[in-house]
Amino acid sequence: MKNNDKMRIALLGLGTVGYGVYDFIRRHDDMEIACAMSLVVPEDVTCPIVRNIEEIYEDDSIDTVVEVIGGLHPAYEWISGALKAGKNVITANKLLIAKHYRELVSLAKEKGVALRCTAAAGGGIPWLTSLKRCADQEPVIRISGIMNGTTNFILDTMHRTGGSFENALKEAQRLGYAEADPADDLNGADIRRKLVISSNIGYGCVLDEDEVAVEGIERITDADISVFRRMGRVCKLIAASRNLESGIAAYIEPALMLPSMPESAIPENYNLISLTGKHIGKQSFYGQGAGRYPTAYNVLQDCVDVLGGVRSFYTDQLKPAHVDNSSIIRAYYVRTDGVDKWLQSKVDKILDCGIITKPVPVPEIHSWAKQRRLTDPNCFIASLR
Amino acid sequence: MKNNDKMRIALLGLGTVGYGVYDFIRRHDDMEIACAMSLVVPEDVTCPIVRNIEEIYEDDSIDTVVEVIGGLHPAYEWISGALKAGKNVITANKLLIAKHYRELVSLAKEKGVALRCTAAAGGGIPWLTSLKRCADQEPVIRISGIMNGTTNFILDTMHRTGGSFENALKEAQRLGYAEADPADDLNGADIRRKLVISSNIGYGCVLDEDEVAVEGIERITDADISVFRRMGRVCKLIAASRNLESGIAAYIEPALMLPSMPESAIPENYNLISLTGKHIGKQSFYGQGAGRYPTAYNVLQDCVDVLGGVRSFYTDQLKPAHVDNSSIIRAYYVRTDGVDKWLQSKVDKILDCGIITKPVPVPEIHSWAKQRRLTDPNCFIASLR
Repeated sequence: MKNNDKMRIALLGLGTVGYGVYDFIRRHDDMEIACAMSLVVPEDVTCPIVRNIEEIYEDDSIDTVVEVIGGLHPAYEWISGALKAGKNVITANKLLIAKHYRELVSLAKEKGVALRCTAAAGGGIPWLTSLKRCADQEPVIRISGIMNGTTNFILDTMHRTGGSFENALKEAQRLGYAEADPADDLNGADIRRKLVISSNIGYGCVLDEDEVAVEGIERITDADISVFRRMGRVCKLIAASRNLESGIAAYIEPALMLPSMPESAIPENYNLISLTGKHIGKQSFYGQGAGRYPTAYNVLQDCVDVLGGVRSFYTDQLKPAHVDNSSIIRAYYVRTDGVDKWLQSKVDKILDCGIITKPVPVPEIHSWAKQRRLTDPNCFIASLR
Repeated sequence: MKNNDKMRIALLGLGTVGYGVYDFIRRHDDMEIACAMSLVVPEDVTCPIVRNIEEIYEDDSIDTVVEVIGGLHPAYEWISGALKAGKNVITANKLLIAKHYRELVSLAKEKGVALRCTAAAGGGIPWLTSLKRCADQEPVIRISGIMNGTTNFILDTMHRTGGSFENALKEAQRLGYAEADPADDLNGADIRRKLVISSNIGYGCVLDEDEVAVEGIERITDADISVFRRMGRVCKLIAASRNLESGIAAYIEPALMLPSMPESAIPENYNLISLTGKHIGKQSFYGQGAGRYPTAYNVLQDCVDVLGGVRSFYTDQLKPAHVDNSSIIRAYYVRTDGVDKWLQSKVDKILDCGIITKPVPVPEIHSWAKQRRLTDPNCFIASLR
């Protein structure tokens, strides 16, 4: 800290999470919100409100910037600026960290300041904290789980009620679990960012998110769900990566879990994220993946770590890595209208609605599905676990 | 650390966990096993072996003592002696910490040294680490879960195979998941120690383990399990405590979980432990509750924290507290031979084997069961969740 032992924070954003952070920190003796930037200011917020980010850069009494506005711009410019000005940065912004990972981690390292984003993956779960502690001691060989609460809520609702995707989405929106534009949750873009950040930290590498294969749940129907129920399976949107000798495997897809798998029991908008260490086996972490206080809790824990002297990112390893999923081979549920040659050659079992394939490599079927949607835009796939 | 930045450790015990600790630490540059005490020494252990604990107390180059021999004696004398000699102490000994909690925590505080026991509850799960981080920021209001791998293995095996308790226990012993004398696992004494340590740290209190009500699984039969299966329930041995305004509730009992509860899906000898924070809701932690490398992993993480400067127990709050479970009211499955007046007055439903009671307070039925066993030693109870 600069002049005394009290942490002085500039808070960028006073929305849902920002207000939670403000509320947590005002109960602390050893931290204070020196100022905030926000278009809307809740009534009981009493800290100074600044209008110009330069004021924060130039204020030497401010040692830490907390960014909870989200989005790429102006978050990117403000975070880069804060790091350049020698401030520690704590953010919940997964979009930004996944996209500008190498640049921001390198910049923090160069400046000798902390960059922390525990709330960016797993919301209120101490996931990145535990992953970092493990990766420091032990080779992490696998990461997987349910990392998106919106899609888990929709799938859980469809399984429980037998109702349509549209109704489940509406219910999620009504409860504040899905945004007005839910595209990034449904198509897997959100969970992909979390998998990229987690894999980068766990394996000490830098993944390009565009290389991570992704299938979302936006085309799932109640007819699919009733087939899964008859199969005794539970559909979940699963992110998975492995640190293989041949490289990193990383992909997102709907997966049909057996009831005995812990993922099957994850209700509503909760997350369950697991790591596997070489010697220690599997550890899993369960909790709220979003929400005011859960997310603010992880931001607060980052503040506590920085106050305790942390002046780094979780890892300083930035090993370039390409994604290669070719060694991952699974059977898939596929539902598509019309005839397809490739699919016919892979059929193992025909169901009321859709088929089960013989085991196929992940990249082959992901590519096929994208191609197939030029003919049948509603084609849906899910792997069997 | 004393003379340089390298941590110098005296390792008490080179058994299953001790060897795991040795193996982890020999790969570290910033820690070393200065010496070990052990009756049996594995072939590839190259550190000096000492025969007299006084040598360790008197060696100023040793800053930290790691105790993984287990049992009350001589662990109690050695750990007390090490703390008095100004050494940091890291232990996996739940028996010792639960029994001498106030004394050992006070002694460490007085001497300004670290006392850590992360491996004592949750084996290889970062449970106490995460609980402490939460409790430092946020009122913990509830702790619960599956904290004993032996009993979970037995119950899981009985549910999967429909076989007898005796066969499941034999299988657990064959796989090394149960000891030759499994009494403390089966009767709940082991899980009770873990609940006491967790509650003490989570709530900043000191519980007397004898006040924590406990029912074990030693009387469960395959007939009970088939009733539970027909009810659509899964039996688990659950430890639970709550931090209520009126005091602390804490008890251990077999519990019949719904399939939608994450506990139901916990397989084999795994653990699942949860905390509930006032603002952040529920967080759960899943993994191996025992085993060489999982347990050694938490010992190693304690070493890392001490190397990083930790010089305390998880909490310095030692608020005296009495256990009061009278506000916890549940329906119970009860199986007993013969007629009982109290039970007749509480019957809600009669099953093929056993009955379901109306909701009754936890202390009332726990006392009744103990009394009842004077007449029917095989009487078994389990709460409905």
